[in-house]
Amino acid sequence: MPERLLLGPGPSNSHPSVLEALSLPPIGHLDPFYVSLMGEVQELLRYVWQTDNRLTLPMSGTGSAAMEATIANSVEPGDTVLVAIKGYFGHRLADMASRYQAKVETINRPWGEVFSLEELETAIVKYRPTILAIVHAETSTGVCQPMEGIGDLCRKYDCLLLLDTVTSLGGVPLFLDSWKVDLAYSCTQKGLSCPPGLGPFTMSSRAEKKLANRKGKVPNWYLDVSLLNKYWGSDRVYHHTAPVNMNFGIREALRLLAEEGLQNAWDRHRLNAENLWTGLEKLGLELHVSEDLRLPTLTTVKIPEGVDGKAFSLHLLNKYGIEIGGGLGDLAGKVWRIGLMGYNSNSENVERVLNVFESELPNFRESIVSAA
Amino acid sequence: MPERLLLGPGPSNSHPSVLEALSLPPIGHLDPFYVSLMGEVQELLRYVWQTDNRLTLPMSGTGSAAMEATIANSVEPGDTVLVAIKGYFGHRLADMASRYQAKVETINRPWGEVFSLEELETAIVKYRPTILAIVHAETSTGVCQPMEGIGDLCRKYDCLLLLDTVTSLGGVPLFLDSWKVDLAYSCTQKGLSCPPGLGPFTMSSRAEKKLANRKGKVPNWYLDVSLLNKYWGSDRVYHHTAPVNMNFGIREALRLLAEEGLQNAWDRHRLNAENLWTGLEKLGLELHVSEDLRLPTLTTVKIPEGVDGKAFSLHLLNKYGIEIGGGLGDLAGKVWRIGLMGYNSNSENVERVLNVFESELPNFRESIVSAA
Repeated sequence: MPERLLLGPGPSNSHPSVLEALSLPPIGHLDPFYVSLMGEVQELLRYVWQTDNRLTLPMSGTGSAAMEATIANSVEPGDTVLVAIKGYFGHRLADMASRYQAKVETINRPWGEVFSLEELETAIVKYRPTILAIVHAETSTGVCQPMEGIGDLCRKYDCLLLLDTVTSLGGVPLFLDSWKVDLAYSCTQKGLSCPPGLGPFTMSSRAEKKLANRKGKVPNWYLDVSLLNKYWGSDRVYHHTAPVNMNFGIREALRLLAEEGLQNAWDRHRLNAENLWTGLEKLGLELHVSEDLRLPTLTTVKIPEGVDGKAFSLHLLNKYGIEIGGGLGDLAGKVWRIGLMGYNSNSENVERVLNVFESELPNFRESIVSAA
Repeated sequence: MPERLLLGPGPSNSHPSVLEALSLPPIGHLDPFYVSLMGEVQELLRYVWQTDNRLTLPMSGTGSAAMEATIANSVEPGDTVLVAIKGYFGHRLADMASRYQAKVETINRPWGEVFSLEELETAIVKYRPTILAIVHAETSTGVCQPMEGIGDLCRKYDCLLLLDTVTSLGGVPLFLDSWKVDLAYSCTQKGLSCPPGLGPFTMSSRAEKKLANRKGKVPNWYLDVSLLNKYWGSDRVYHHTAPVNMNFGIREALRLLAEEGLQNAWDRHRLNAENLWTGLEKLGLELHVSEDLRLPTLTTVKIPEGVDGKAFSLHLLNKYGIEIGGGLGDLAGKVWRIGLMGYNSNSENVERVLNVFESELPNFRESIVSAA
C-alpha cells in the first residue's frame, strides 16, 4: 500500500495510536472487557456530540448506515419527511426516506448556500412534516448550516429534527442537546481520525417515543435500534457479532479527542482552515463558499477556468501522494475539495498543500495556455 | 485488552498478519491502489466460495448485514419465502424476510437435526415459494446440512436457493456453483481468521435477473446491490465510503487461505475437529449432533447434568483466558459451543481445550455432588 496524505473529503488519515488499537487481537463481543469498552464508547460519543441521549451508539457500518438508521427507525409509511436539500447528501436523505415509504417533500438551495429560518418555517408550515432532515456540514459543498432556532421551530410545529453531522463531528462546534436535535449520525473517518467502518448514531427521547409507538417492526433488521438497544443496554442480548476491532479503534479515537478537549479541537480546525483560505486566496484562487458559511473541515476551491481539475488532482496523487477531492453532483468539474480533518488538521499539512498548489498549478495553467 | 483464546462460536482469533494489514494507514476509497485491491478481494471470495458469480463482494457490515442483503435484494412484497428452520439463524432469516413484506412460510426440525430432500420437496410443492432459505452450517446447533440435490429441487420448482454459509466458509467443503446456490452470505471472523466487520455476499445471474426486474427500489439503501454494483463494477461510482482497513484485512485473510489451499484448509478443520470429538468423548462427554452431521468448525457438547454451564465457561475465561460459547434458543443452558475455526483450528488448541476440560470440569461436577 502506498503512503497517502488524505486531504480530500474523507477518509482522512488516522491517528497512529488508533491504527495500533485497531490491530489488537479481537475479544468476544460479550466479553466483560468488551462490554465495558462499549460503555466507554457511548459515554465518549455523548461528550463529542454534547448530548445526554441514552440511545447513543456506533452502528456497525459506515456513516451511510448510520444515516439510514436515523430514517429506518423514525419513519413510518406515510409520514411526511421534509428534506432541506443544499447538496449531494440532502438528495441521499430524500432517496432513503422514500425507500421507507415516507411522503418526501423537499426544498432546495443552490449548492454552496444555506437555508434561512424563514425559509424553513415557511416549508414546515406548508408541509407539516413529521421529520425535518437537514445537513449540518455539507461534504459536497463545504457549507455549514447555521443551527440557531431550527430546533425551536421543530418543537413549535411538533416535528423531529434529523441532522447530518458527518463532516462536523469533532471539527466544528456541535451542541446536539442545546440545538434540540432528535436524530443525528456521523462517521469515523473525518473529525475522529479513525478509519471508516462505524457510524455514530444518536436519538433523543422524543425520537425514542416515536420508535416505541410504531405500528410495525422497523423494516430494517440490522439497523433496528429497538433490537440494538437490548445489546447496548443493560440486557446484553446478542444481536449481531460486533465489529470489535473497529470499536477498539473508535474508542481510542474518542479518547484522544477528549484528551485534547472539544473546544481545543474546534479551535485547531478553525485556525488551520483560516490559514488555508488565506493561502489559497494569496495564490489567486477563489473559494466557493462565502466566508461566514465556510466549514473549517472542508474547503471547496473553484477550479480556475481552463484547468483540468481531475488531471491536477491525479498529478498530486501520483507525484506527491496527496489526495484532494473533486466536485460531486452540481459541483462536478467545478471545484476541488480540500479536507483538513481530525489528525490531518495541522499547520504542516496546510503548508504542504499550499506549496504543491503554488509549485504545480502554474504548469496546469500554462499547458492550457500553450494548447490554446 | 486481555489476551483471549477465542474458541466460541465467533469471533475467532485473527491471523497476526491480518491484524497487521488492518493497521495500515488508510487510503482513499477511489484510489487506484484501493480499486485494484477491491478486484482481488472479489476474485478471492469467488475462489473460497467456488463460484463464478459476477456480483460477489463484501458488504460493509458484519455477516448479519450480508444476510439482510440477500433478503433485501431478492424479496419483493408478497413473495413467498420458505425458511427451513433448524436453529437460531433460521428464525432470524424468517424475521428478516417478514420485514421485507414476504409471505413467510416455515418448516422446522429439532435443533441438532437436518432436513431430508423429501421434506424440502414436500414443502416446496405445498408453498411454491419464490425463495427457499436454509442454513448450511447452523452456528447455534453445530449441524451441517447435506446439500446434494437441494439446488436441483429449487431449479425444478423455479425458486431461488438462499444459503447461510457463515460458519462454513473457509472451514467446510462448499461449492456454491455446483450446488446451484443463488444467494449466499458469510462473515469474516470465523473460517477467514479476520476480525468481524465485513459480510461476504454473492448472487447468481438468476438472482440478478430477479433484482433487475423488481418493480420498486430495493427498500434498503445501504445494502442495495444495484447501487453497490456501480462502485464494485467498472464504473466506480461513489456509493458509501468503504471501510478500507477492514478490506485490507479481508484481502490478507483470503490471500492466506488461497496460499494454504481450500482443500488443505478443509482437511485441517476436519482433522482437528475429529481429534476434539474423540478427546471429549474420552472425557465422558456427549456431543449433541450425530457424527455424520457434525460441523468441523463448531462442536456442541452436552453440559453434564447438574453442572452450571455458564459458571464453567466463565471460569475458563477468567482463569485461562479461553472463551467457549453457551447455547442459544432451544439449546440455552444445554450445550457448550466449541469453535475451531480458521487460524484457531490447530492441534495445540485442541490439546489446550481438552486439558482444561479434563482438569477443571471435575471440580464443577464435584461441587454439584457436594452441594447435593
